Amino acid sequence: MIKPLFWENGRLLIVDQTRLPDEYCLIEVHDHLEMAEAIRRLAIRGAPALGIAAAYGLVLGLRAYQTADSTTFRQKLDEIAAALFATRPTAVNLGWALQRMKHIAESYSGKTAESIWQTLLAEAHAIHTEEIARCQAIARQGFKVMPDEGNLLTHCNTGGLATGGLGTALGVIINACRHGKRLHVFVDETRPLLQGARLTTWELTQEKVPFTLICDNMAASVMLKHNVRAVIVGADRIAANGDTANKIGTYGLAVLAHYHQIPFYVAAPTSTIDHSLKSGKLISIEERNAAEVKTCAGKTIAPATAPAISPAFDITPHKLISAIVTERGIHRPPYKFK
Amino acid sequence: MIKPLFWENGRLLIVDQTRLPDEYCLIEVHDHLEMAEAIRRLAIRGAPALGIAAAYGLVLGLRAYQTADSTTFRQKLDEIAAALFATRPTAVNLGWALQRMKHIAESYSGKTAESIWQTLLAEAHAIHTEEIARCQAIARQGFKVMPDEGNLLTHCNTGGLATGGLGTALGVIINACRHGKRLHVFVDETRPLLQGARLTTWELTQEKVPFTLICDNMAASVMLKHNVRAVIVGADRIAANGDTANKIGTYGLAVLAHYHQIPFYVAAPTSTIDHSLKSGKLISIEERNAAEVKTCAGKTIAPATAPAISPAFDITPHKLISAIVTERGIHRPPYKFK
Repeated sequence: MIKPLFWENGRLLIVDQTRLPDEYCLIEVHDHLEMAEAIRRLAIRGAPALGIAAAYGLVLGLRAYQTADSTTFRQKLDEIAAALFATRPTAVNLGWALQRMKHIAESYSGKTAESIWQTLLAEAHAIHTEEIARCQAIARQGFKVMPDEGNLLTHCNTGGLATGGLGTALGVIINACRHGKRLHVFVDETRPLLQGARLTTWELTQEKVPFTLICDNMAASVMLKHNVRAVIVGADRIAANGDTANKIGTYGLAVLAHYHQIPFYVAAPTSTIDHSLKSGKLISIEERNAAEVKTCAGKTIAPATAPAISPAFDITPHKLISAIVTERGIHRPPYKFK
Repeated sequence: MIKPLFWENGRLLIVDQTRLPDEYCLIEVHDHLEMAEAIRRLAIRGAPALGIAAAYGLVLGLRAYQTADSTTFRQKLDEIAAALFATRPTAVNLGWALQRMKHIAESYSGKTAESIWQTLLAEAHAIHTEEIARCQAIARQGFKVMPDEGNLLTHCNTGGLATGGLGTALGVIINACRHGKRLHVFVDETRPLLQGARLTTWELTQEKVPFTLICDNMAASVMLKHNVRAVIVGADRIAANGDTANKIGTYGLAVLAHYHQIPFYVAAPTSTIDHSLKSGKLISIEERNAAEVKTCAGKTIAPATAPAISPAFDITPHKLISAIVTERGIHRPPYKFK
């Protein structure tokens, strides 16, 4: 299985995803500051993987305070969690994992800092293990909606690198292929940061799933000419009504799938659902540095003075989503997750 | 005005568009072989500009045969025209210009090779001059469909570099701004070869038209959030029923515009209309080297073994086109151009 991070002998190693597919490079993350920086520069990314990374980041940041008094420890915990939470605003899993870590610390509030730290480390491992199990369950559930054969289309990267497990949308595809479905995947390159071209192609090559890389703007033409049977994508945050924030370009794909009468599926763990938000209008969208759009793979592609925007996500309204696949089942409209 | 090529003192110079916006670099084209190569590698591109380039390419190729007998001259004319015609299959203007050159040569068939060559040179100049006039007329016609203010969206490059004149879609926009309309343009970067990011931004900067560069996959989100008032694009070939071949990604934009109830305009000279084709299904689509998709601005972005496709164009069915603007007027459905 493709893993985005490893806890080994008390050290946390992450795959620097910005260097894939050219180099597979593990880097050690020593504390929460380095983790926050790794998250911000997308060395680690993908909503479920961000939850795991945030949990480990908190553990790493608190390591230096194992001998501190409990007030200091608690204060540092809040500080570090806030710093990690601030790295990326859209993926709900980040806040979800940090909340869970805080609750576990509170429930052990009478214990020593060292003992609470050990509990937090165990909880980070648990979040990671559960995410792996959730991916397996999503893949099992998603099997039912996958066609027996034919072409699919996906966007961004939603595999092992994004989740810590088999993947969400990509996990569904890989699992279906492992169990005999004869699928071929059109992979959107996913500008500006090319997670599809760089990461999804890399994972599918290793998983021996047949695919064809396309530019994002080829999706409509591919849907029309190549009999695409389903579009399946991941999610960064899902509102209570099913509206889904995901990588920029997802909303456009959903409109195109609707026009071509192709089912449009979202696959995500229930940890991605934000029950506190009634609709997608309330999801805050991360605006990244416009330099990402004015460059491609590090090379400048536009005049230096050219204005540009770089919204990292868009919102797909629930009415364009045929079903949402979670570890609990296939949710169909009207969406009610509780 | 931004020009893609210059005939000066018996020499043909073209702007190497592959090096923009980093470098503005004029290269001399000595014969038809160099012109064919320049067309193939997109140093010169854009349907109307390709017509002009093909005409000059024929003149350059025949220059060495001015003292030949008329049979040899005629034979070379056919050979060179065929070689130029074979460079790119979708843009109709290329074949249109070459046919026109052949007809003029035939009508002077009693004359010496040298005299016919001079006539052909004059005809190439005429094609160029007429394209400039057609752009002006398209811009004037298009003025009527442009909103007085607000956001537009365009794709690829359809300005001076693509046409030899003011432009088609971009000409309409630039002319509207020059005449007081307060427009702002969202510019699709237009993968794989980034004509939007590299060329359209460069032209709009010089023309002082306000714009914002976006990745192709942001178009849907921009339409929804930024109240886009119209989408306007160029064309490489238009069938008799209005179906339009244009840069890959155009069809998707037309579907998205339709969904968001935004008018979708095509602007092109009548030389782009192929009356011999009943519908877009008959337009042959150039498949370019997949390496273009696996690289971005020359840098590799996907694993070396990754399969990819690179269709250069797609077909937008006439039912998704609100109007086609030519130098003769605003054509509305059902399209009848004669």
